[in-house]
Amino acid sequence: MQITHALVGKDGFRLRGEEMSRIDGFSDVVFGFALTLIVASLEVPKTFDELQDVLLGFLPFSICFLFLMTVWLSHFRFFRRFGLHDLATIVINAALLFTVLFYVYPLKFLFTLFTSQFYTEHTEHHPITHAYQFRQLTVTYALGFTAIYLFLFLLNWNGWRQRDALQLDELERLIVRGEMVDLGATACCGVAVAIVAMLIAPQHAMAACYLFGLIGIWKTITGSYFGK
Amino acid sequence: MQITHALVGKDGFRLRGEEMSRIDGFSDVVFGFALTLIVASLEVPKTFDELQDVLLGFLPFSICFLFLMTVWLSHFRFFRRFGLHDLATIVINAALLFTVLFYVYPLKFLFTLFTSQFYTEHTEHHPITHAYQFRQLTVTYALGFTAIYLFLFLLNWNGWRQRDALQLDELERLIVRGEMVDLGATACCGVAVAIVAMLIAPQHAMAACYLFGLIGIWKTITGSYFGK
Amino acid sequence: MQITHALVGKDGFRLRGEEMSRIDGFSDVVFGFALTLIVASLEVPKTFDELQDVLLGFLPFSICFLFLMTVWLSHFRFFRRFGLHDLATIVINAALLFTVLFYVYPLKFLFTLFTSQFYTEHTEHHPITHAYQFRQLTVTYALGFTAIYLFLFLLNWNGWRQRDALQLDELERLIVRGEMVDLGATACCGVAVAIVAMLIAPQHAMAACYLFGLIGIWKTITGSYFGK
Amino acid sequence: MQITHALVGKDGFRLRGEEMSRIDGFSDVVFGFALTLIVASLEVPKTFDELQDVLLGFLPFSICFLFLMTVWLSHFRFFRRFGLHDLATIVINAALLFTVLFYVYPLKFLFTLFTSQFYTEHTEHHPITHAYQFRQLTVTYALGFTAIYLFLFLLNWNGWRQRDALQLDELERLIVRGEMVDLGATACCGVAVAIVAMLIAPQHAMAACYLFGLIGIWKTITGSYFGK
Repeated sequence: MQITHALVGKDGFRLRGEEMSRIDGFSDVVFGFALTLIVASLEVPKTFDELQDVLLGFLPFSICFLFLMTVWLSHFRFFRRFGLHDLATIVINAALLFTVLFYVYPLKFLFTLFTSQFYTEHTEHHPITHAYQFRQLTVTYALGFTAIYLFLFLLNWNGWRQRDALQLDELERLIVRGEMVDLGATACCGVAVAIVAMLIAPQHAMAACYLFGLIGIWKTITGSYFGK
Repeated sequence: MQITHALVGKDGFRLRGEEMSRIDGFSDVVFGFALTLIVASLEVPKTFDELQDVLLGFLPFSICFLFLMTVWLSHFRFFRRFGLHDLATIVINAALLFTVLFYVYPLKFLFTLFTSQFYTEHTEHHPITHAYQFRQLTVTYALGFTAIYLFLFLLNWNGWRQRDALQLDELERLIVRGEMVDLGATACCGVAVAIVAMLIAPQHAMAACYLFGLIGIWKTITGSYFGK
Repeated sequence: MQITHALVGKDGFRLRGEEMSRIDGFSDVVFGFALTLIVASLEVPKTFDELQDVLLGFLPFSICFLFLMTVWLSHFRFFRRFGLHDLATIVINAALLFTVLFYVYPLKFLFTLFTSQFYTEHTEHHPITHAYQFRQLTVTYALGFTAIYLFLFLLNWNGWRQRDALQLDELERLIVRGEMVDLGATACCGVAVAIVAMLIAPQHAMAACYLFGLIGIWKTITGSYFGK
Repeated sequence: MQITHALVGKDGFRLRGEEMSRIDGFSDVVFGFALTLIVASLEVPKTFDELQDVLLGFLPFSICFLFLMTVWLSHFRFFRRFGLHDLATIVINAALLFTVLFYVYPLKFLFTLFTSQFYTEHTEHHPITHAYQFRQLTVTYALGFTAIYLFLFLLNWNGWRQRDALQLDELERLIVRGEMVDLGATACCGVAVAIVAMLIAPQHAMAACYLFGLIGIWKTITGSYFGK
């Protein structure tokens, strides 16, 4: 039966946390809730027009979903590789879950803002009233983004710290180092966005978000994120 | 203890994913949420009349429940048979979960529409105001239905692609081929409904849904869905 | 490590479903939701008076909680004893979950009704306006209660049907028979309440609920429910 | 593969409940819900000002989160150490989950009250109108706090009662005794707060909460809570 549940991942990383632990289960309940909170605030449509509004939510909902699944995938990969359950892992993981739950509603707000420009009929009641709010928004989200990737980085760093006790071999140490560089670089992009948003004119602060594109360039240079 | 948790299913398919994995657990949280979202939007009744309204929701709620359980059963069967956790499986599974969460509220709208004709006291505020909306509704749902079965098909196809690595034997290959044909045919029914709804007069577009009956005919011809 | 996770229960029943399966996990998400739906409809209190209203909900909430935990315990015991995952088990289990989710809001309504007589300040807006509604209420709940215990009975009966394949020994067959008689008798109490409620004057129909006390008498005669 | 999932904890306690059981899973769904209920009541912000209100909820939300995670950690540690699934454990655990679910909304009310003094713009509509309400509030929460730690104590006491059947060695008995003293002392702090709140002037009753600081002093004396 070890055909597919092989104890060694495709990349050669031996899986130390193959079985589902309580931390995995607890985290998945929280991730599942985060996804549902994005939908759950929508009312059940009662008329065709309300239904159409729900369907127009497709784009922001799918972007949030994609972002959360990327975070989940990093989380999943870490716990499968290390299978750690020490106190440091529990505390960092709790901080990660807290950040995800705390940002899920504001995140939806942001993506609705970004995508509302495609649906011109909604623009009359614009949710932003002052220019400085663009700057504050951008900084808030950039810091949330940074926090999530910082915690993912810290999880891996906590595993790396115990590399001798975990008997990581040469290949595994290389992979963990790569993962840490990736996560750290992604977190730094968030910091860069926040700094640039503070420096440029407030009404253009959201343009700093284009710096997130750096992540894509980074990934292209260092090889694909998932396929390594 | 291997009496009932036998590693070989009743149909002779060896179960490669007997244990619960994190992908299973995460998916079940989302499926459980989808079921609850159907109920959760209902307010706790405060008077007898409101209670009666909740009880009248029995029929649409049970149809949604039945549909979701059918999808869950397909999902359950796939992961027990293949036990795959590669990136393609995770991505297709995420797309499936997204579609389920996204369609759960609109689905409830549809079934309420279908069944509201039995409760004449509600008909005065009909949720549909123009004939073209019937067409748009039918096409939207037919495509959602198609997407769900397409993703279930893709999951199995991804398993089929790895049939040599998974060491599927002759019987297992036969069963997977049968499953793929079934899921593919069901997805095609959704496409057929969408096409017919585009061609006929808009006010009769919902009649295209009777084409879903083709699935029943198909199942009768190729043998029972569950019992094979 | 088999010290406490012994493969044989205290009553001598060998546990065939010791490990957590996906059906267990999925059912627990639904049970957890049912519990939460009872709380979730309450708004977060904003003033001291609203807080007091929430605290007054203690009694109905705890009765609902107790009832759901009893059903969960029966469910838990069945799956640990039999570890069955055949289609009949999945279908009966789905029907049980559906009934639990469907009745959770109406259940809360009922217990609020029962307990509201202790809080005289709420009685001015009585939720019942006609005498026949008492009858209809009682019949509706008695049937829901019957359905839940009928499905629990059917789960055990489906296990009993496969007693030879599962290699149940003499003691185990005795225990399953006892469980089936218990669950069947409890379901019959629900039917008795419904019938009596149909026969007596509508305004006294809720008095038929005292017949649920028969369950207590039955348990006392046949030995304790949990301790056997 | 037993590198990190060692059967012996860092403190020398042999882990009897290493695998995830259904009681663990069920409890985690409820803990996950409790966390989400704290967020879920917040509406998705539609304007920048509403978003800022959500962000101001950071402090009360994070205190609730921290408290719940501490309770979860105690729960996690107990079930990993003892792996008990007897009826007493199930009943005490159910009582614990009930208390957590029941107090989650009132808890949020309390922390909002405590922290609202930092956000002066909210103070015009103060939620407390009479002095006696401070006393009632403090007693209510102190008793809820006591109940949660009493149930955690009872879980460990129930394990202690079975120390011979579980074959606890000398070190393990020492650790369990220490845990019981810790949990018992924490529960007593709750009782002390309630008693002091009853004795002092009602408008200063909340000052009794400073007695919770005794827990910190206690921990400092008996050694760190997590690190032992």
